[in-house]
Amino acid sequence: MAASIDREVKKLPTLRGRTVVNLFYESSTRTLASFELAAKRLSADTMSLRAAGSSVDKGESLKDTALTLAAYDPDVIVVRHPSIGAPHLVARWTGAHVVNAGDGKHQHPTQALLDLYAMEEALGHLEGLHVAIVGDVLHSRVARSLVQALGLVGARSTLVGPPTLLPRGIEALGCDVSTDIRGIVDADVVYVLRMQRERMAPGEAFVPSLREYTALYGITPERVRPGQVVMHPGPMNRGVEIDPRVADSDAALVTDQVRAGLVVRMAVLYDLLTTSRVRVVEPLEIA
Amino acid sequence: MAASIDREVKKLPTLRGRTVVNLFYESSTRTLASFELAAKRLSADTMSLRAAGSSVDKGESLKDTALTLAAYDPDVIVVRHPSIGAPHLVARWTGAHVVNAGDGKHQHPTQALLDLYAMEEALGHLEGLHVAIVGDVLHSRVARSLVQALGLVGARSTLVGPPTLLPRGIEALGCDVSTDIRGIVDADVVYVLRMQRERMAPGEAFVPSLREYTALYGITPERVRPGQVVMHPGPMNRGVEIDPRVADSDAALVTDQVRAGLVVRMAVLYDLLTTSRVRVVEPLEIA
Amino acid sequence: MAASIDREVKKLPTLRGRTVVNLFYESSTRTLASFELAAKRLSADTMSLRAAGSSVDKGESLKDTALTLAAYDPDVIVVRHPSIGAPHLVARWTGAHVVNAGDGKHQHPTQALLDLYAMEEALGHLEGLHVAIVGDVLHSRVARSLVQALGLVGARSTLVGPPTLLPRGIEALGCDVSTDIRGIVDADVVYVLRMQRERMAPGEAFVPSLREYTALYGITPERVRPGQVVMHPGPMNRGVEIDPRVADSDAALVTDQVRAGLVVRMAVLYDLLTTSRVRVVEPLEIA
Repeated sequence: MAASIDREVKKLPTLRGRTVVNLFYESSTRTLASFELAAKRLSADTMSLRAAGSSVDKGESLKDTALTLAAYDPDVIVVRHPSIGAPHLVARWTGAHVVNAGDGKHQHPTQALLDLYAMEEALGHLEGLHVAIVGDVLHSRVARSLVQALGLVGARSTLVGPPTLLPRGIEALGCDVSTDIRGIVDADVVYVLRMQRERMAPGEAFVPSLREYTALYGITPERVRPGQVVMHPGPMNRGVEIDPRVADSDAALVTDQVRAGLVVRMAVLYDLLTTSRVRVVEPLEIA
Repeated sequence: MAASIDREVKKLPTLRGRTVVNLFYESSTRTLASFELAAKRLSADTMSLRAAGSSVDKGESLKDTALTLAAYDPDVIVVRHPSIGAPHLVARWTGAHVVNAGDGKHQHPTQALLDLYAMEEALGHLEGLHVAIVGDVLHSRVARSLVQALGLVGARSTLVGPPTLLPRGIEALGCDVSTDIRGIVDADVVYVLRMQRERMAPGEAFVPSLREYTALYGITPERVRPGQVVMHPGPMNRGVEIDPRVADSDAALVTDQVRAGLVVRMAVLYDLLTTSRVRVVEPLEIA
Repeated sequence: MAASIDREVKKLPTLRGRTVVNLFYESSTRTLASFELAAKRLSADTMSLRAAGSSVDKGESLKDTALTLAAYDPDVIVVRHPSIGAPHLVARWTGAHVVNAGDGKHQHPTQALLDLYAMEEALGHLEGLHVAIVGDVLHSRVARSLVQALGLVGARSTLVGPPTLLPRGIEALGCDVSTDIRGIVDADVVYVLRMQRERMAPGEAFVPSLREYTALYGITPERVRPGQVVMHPGPMNRGVEIDPRVADSDAALVTDQVRAGLVVRMAVLYDLLTTSRVRVVEPLEIA
């Protein structure tokens, strides 16, 4: 897949005549575009449904939508949904392969796969790496998926952030925890999470102010050690969780991650439709 | 077409190089997705324009939009519009084949075709069938198209619902009318119409309450006779016009209808572009 | 390209495996549809991102979006943006060919190219033509691009409109200026600009009323001389800047312009990806 996207003609005929449906109940320009492009590059037909999840009967409406889609007999359904476990329900209701593109605060497995891919491309190996994941862990499905994935490949992780944004008992996932930004110093990779501005709203004030968050946990050139690489799942809040000088430096792998996303999602679709007996791309347990 | 959608590679090269434009002035995830997928499965290029019909100069704006589209010389324009007769106007202004995908309360002919197809698949024949159409007939273009289509194939229909939702003189279409839910008892097919919640709004209160409507006309397991099949054009309001136990039972043809929609719309596009001399898929008169 | 769109099978395999990204920060059904269709007709894959430009950090967000897109290594990025010069920035940040599809009040070069194409088709030549451009020149990137393009092919232009809608010093572009509608009388082409209704809002009242504007500058049958052709970039405000009798007359080239848009945009994409060494389709200076 990586070789194909460097060619002038980037399209592969592999999945011609197959149908990939993107069912997105949360807005996501980047992940949706990445899956759409991955499917098109493999010559699959795509159909994208963006649905605004209503507050009532969400389960029922998801069920009927899934059954409607299943009637078209798609090969893959890519699901993003605000409720934990929604992709599993869609897999139960339909005969399609189902890819979890993010379910609530739970998991975002293709993000973790692309992050591992980008790390290995940049650093040459995964085993033994130490990754510091910095910021709003509490609301981050990216952090949950990444910690588990790192454990599976023999790497270790440290979660760093203010106490209000580190869920209690998160160590159970098999990671270290630190409330001190100096906890990133011996990491090979500094993985910066997006700071969601809406978390600052009165009534849900997880940090006193963005300014204070930035002062204590923002990733500045001073805080990045030579030899470290910096990653971010995007979109970045430049000047909040990451200093623009870091974002634009050679240490940043942000565009490598985007590129890895295309390669990895092509590989996931290819694998599901040609070789695999797996039907759901997601860790088996539901937290 | 039905055989093609059961194959692993579902795409047919038939309409390669042809262009199908979907011009939707009303929101419709399901019908639009069905037409888009039908066109893609036949290898046609698609272009979908969703336009919010403004309250002023609606006719003029439709005309200029139609003329703009016509300049691209599309092979088919699929039109959904809140005004009765809009597809006929588009056909007059352009040289494209025009398919009516729903015009106001008037007609929705591909829905009727797919319903006939699903009935024949399930019951083996159409002639002599008795179909009870239950619910909000007043606002339903689906009911109007279906009653006419059933008449053409030698089936008969009974409209069932509260007096406020049965338009006066509707018998003229060639159907029976009943305000008693027991009127469905000798039907072969119970066709449940969607209850539009906005009809309950103060000032347009066609029924006293949803609860009362459900008590009097909701399709429960008790009201379905063994041997009857149940249909619904979707999306269903589970617990309002249809009981979830009915919706999920073997008697329900709802997903068969969705699947029939893809088959029938592929057939309509194919027929228009390869064999037919018809230009507008719609009954000739405008009520 | 023109010959290809008259064939029954309109698709050319020329750009198969190439990717065209449409990045639109302003809503534009027509221009976006035209670029999408042009790319599809050449068998390119398309990806369209509509982004609502936020008022803060617009530059930064454009940069990160451009870098994200660049990671997918698209062949062409078509950019529409409310800020002057945005396409140049995207070209600086990425390795893709960049086409300006409209930047603020600055330029809309493919519109000017399609207008020249439609004029030449209708009148047989460009050199020596006299084009009167009527209406809201102040807010029009179309007018700016067209005046420059006409100068390059040896045609001349006269801008006609109320003093409040004619920018001071606009003659510097190499055109005549008139506040009298009779200034159109000796033109070969009357090019009518769209009157943006929002310009009538209190506080930005560039003309006293639409009615008065129409009386003084509306293009009526009486004001069009036999032999003149009338053009409009669309969408038209029928009854405001153009009389419906003119819009629907044989003198009007409006649908020819739409058709020319498809031909010219196909040619631009083809040229960029097969023969040209130009990377940005835009005049070099930024006003």
